[in-house]
Amino acid sequence: MIDKLLNNSGKDLWNKSKLIIPGGNGLLSKRPERYAPDLWPTYFSKANGCEIWDLDGNKFIDMAQMGIGAAILGYCNKEVDRAVSHAISNGISTTLNCPEESLLAQKLIELNPFAGGVRFARTGGEAMAIAIRISRAFTKKDKIAFSGYHGWSDWYLATNLSGNDNLTDHLLPGLSPLGVPKGLKETAIPFKYNDSEDLIEKIKNNSDIGTIVIEGARYDYANSDFIETIQKIAHDNNVLIVVDEITSGWRLTDGGVYKINDLDPDIVVYGKGMGNGYAISSIIGRKEVMDVAQDTFISSTFWTERIGFVAALKTIDIIIREKVWNHLIKIGNQIGQGWESLSKKYDINLSVTDFKPLITMKFDYDKLNPALETLFTQEMLKRGYLAATSVYISFSHTEEIINRYLNDVDEVFEILSNSIKNETVYEKLETKIKEQGFKRLN
Amino acid sequence: MIDKLLNNSGKDLWNKSKLIIPGGNGLLSKRPERYAPDLWPTYFSKANGCEIWDLDGNKFIDMAQMGIGAAILGYCNKEVDRAVSHAISNGISTTLNCPEESLLAQKLIELNPFAGGVRFARTGGEAMAIAIRISRAFTKKDKIAFSGYHGWSDWYLATNLSGNDNLTDHLLPGLSPLGVPKGLKETAIPFKYNDSEDLIEKIKNNSDIGTIVIEGARYDYANSDFIETIQKIAHDNNVLIVVDEITSGWRLTDGGVYKINDLDPDIVVYGKGMGNGYAISSIIGRKEVMDVAQDTFISSTFWTERIGFVAALKTIDIIIREKVWNHLIKIGNQIGQGWESLSKKYDINLSVTDFKPLITMKFDYDKLNPALETLFTQEMLKRGYLAATSVYISFSHTEEIINRYLNDVDEVFEILSNSIKNETVYEKLETKIKEQGFKRLN
Repeated sequence: MIDKLLNNSGKDLWNKSKLIIPGGNGLLSKRPERYAPDLWPTYFSKANGCEIWDLDGNKFIDMAQMGIGAAILGYCNKEVDRAVSHAISNGISTTLNCPEESLLAQKLIELNPFAGGVRFARTGGEAMAIAIRISRAFTKKDKIAFSGYHGWSDWYLATNLSGNDNLTDHLLPGLSPLGVPKGLKETAIPFKYNDSEDLIEKIKNNSDIGTIVIEGARYDYANSDFIETIQKIAHDNNVLIVVDEITSGWRLTDGGVYKINDLDPDIVVYGKGMGNGYAISSIIGRKEVMDVAQDTFISSTFWTERIGFVAALKTIDIIIREKVWNHLIKIGNQIGQGWESLSKKYDINLSVTDFKPLITMKFDYDKLNPALETLFTQEMLKRGYLAATSVYISFSHTEEIINRYLNDVDEVFEILSNSIKNETVYEKLETKIKEQGFKRLN
Repeated sequence: MIDKLLNNSGKDLWNKSKLIIPGGNGLLSKRPERYAPDLWPTYFSKANGCEIWDLDGNKFIDMAQMGIGAAILGYCNKEVDRAVSHAISNGISTTLNCPEESLLAQKLIELNPFAGGVRFARTGGEAMAIAIRISRAFTKKDKIAFSGYHGWSDWYLATNLSGNDNLTDHLLPGLSPLGVPKGLKETAIPFKYNDSEDLIEKIKNNSDIGTIVIEGARYDYANSDFIETIQKIAHDNNVLIVVDEITSGWRLTDGGVYKINDLDPDIVVYGKGMGNGYAISSIIGRKEVMDVAQDTFISSTFWTERIGFVAALKTIDIIIREKVWNHLIKIGNQIGQGWESLSKKYDINLSVTDFKPLITMKFDYDKLNPALETLFTQEMLKRGYLAATSVYISFSHTEEIINRYLNDVDEVFEILSNSIKNETVYEKLETKIKEQGFKRLN
């Protein structure tokens, strides 16, 4: 298997791509350098359920990213694909509107009763930029306090105009804000997740903050004190609450994590999973807030393309009908408990995060972590898995698949454990170590 | 027919949509209020070639927007749709990359030899924001001089922070920059199209401009003096030239209008037509410029979704194979000459613009223009056309269809002519007058 991986056709194509596409592709999380640089297969020829075939016909079980969270139901879901194909046969981008834009707006409002207005975009970053535009237009205040990851847009990266480490606690250490206009300096104020004191202090020092942005969930859930603090600040200071549910949405409830947080958001943003891989994102909000979208200019041709609406309508139907979130939580628990019990068995120090549908294990070996994570991916690849320390669980992951996966994790954890004890982690690597944070590819 | 239009099911759905989607939809140019508010059918049930059916099964020939320029080959092109369907059956958004991202990058570089680097996005506004990020990162200068229309993003609307009329000459009169951060004031400097003196003066007054942005073409072509001026300023001041070919691309050449302009761009942006209605846009540029995309953070999940790449590869293949641009120019000439000769026949004052593939007629009756344009649309609707003063021509518009269309324009111009002479334009209207510029919908 290692020969197959080392000589994979995807490698040649990737090297070619890096010459003409800066970074090799359009998404950091799909770069092989972030997993096992010399072994990760890079390109797919086909996919089905939670299985992927590389360009050479090697099959892998996806125990990693599932389209970076896009394929919530699994690859090639027949019902969704059939709905999309039917739409394609009748036209997708015409001079007139497609009724599905309106139907999807109706459905989102039905499932999110706080909302009275909806706009759509194609990508998550774009949807967040629209949410920020609307919030700034409503509050007439430019400053944003945020926690977590929210994409590539100027409003967010602007935080690093005050020092390149502002995003270190938010998934993007060492990121330069090159190309972000300097006039945005001090418009984006980071605060620590689940740290009410930090948020209170940031608000105290920046009385003109108009918006608080948090993620629905990524690793751990928001504690009730944190939620209450956000709610109180918003209430007392005329600050809007924007919840970015691009990663968390539809995985824990029939909508956002905000529903179980007891949070009253003003705007919620969905993306990723809501169209099962078809590009669609949405901004929903309280009616009076969303209505200011009419007073600023927010318009783009491909936001009205039909496929995204059709795919999201069908995907959400299935999510509701099958209560997909229950499955994701159940499988997430199975994986998390498996990791924990195997780590005890082999005396590996790791912790498992709370948000089950995107279950994550964190090794606790400081500087050795990247090498250990790479070794885990390497050994799982040999056993036929795309595997990393996080798993976006899909509806197509069955208990049986997870049992098989955990059997293989058992073998691999034994290798990890021995190589930790014998200090042979680096020796065992048959690939360069994965890259972390934000780094130029060469 | 007028009863059918007045009682069209699309009207009810549109009124419902306006309650929950601010503005009714995601694209200004797909709002019926911009054509013939009470009559325009609003929603489609199916489309094929250049024909569209509304929700009640009424058929129209699209002599207006063809998906606002997206459907360059015509609706439901079999070859493109077949390629997309095949891709769908093998998976669209997986954890691995799709090879078509790389293949499309290779094709774009082959067709645009100045370019050495490519990035993709889903929408035009997004692609322009990426182009601006890259240009600012490369030049380390935040200020942009621009002419023309470039979407909804902060970098562009920022121009109106210095007064709401800055975009009046650029398709968006009266637009408030609500929600655009005030720190961006004076970062976007407008200059008049084809006015070298104006551009020279703007550059003189803003020595820190790093980027000049123009459209490939919209109405008229850039004159050679204007092109030379841009080129000289760029050369003398280390300014990058960004050509927005979202509207103009693939319609006049096998790429951008910049190719016949004798312009040396640093970055070119394509969108709209390049995927025949599937959402895809691209940013191509000189290699050393594009490479800075690696030093800033430009990443989004759905940029790597497969459909857009597959659709664009096939669409561009067909454009090259059929020399589609020659057809668009020929049909554009036929329409333009038809309009001109009929306007002479009926003594109507109008002019026809130069850019044939998006041919536009401009009435010359000052304040009467909006009513006249509405009357034209109204009378053409009765005859079975979606028609306005601009036509995005597609490969599916045949000479025969245009002959039939011009026969109907003949009748409608006679009505217009008589109503101008008799001062009965307003009386003849069976709908509210179309809206122009940027305006809140009620």
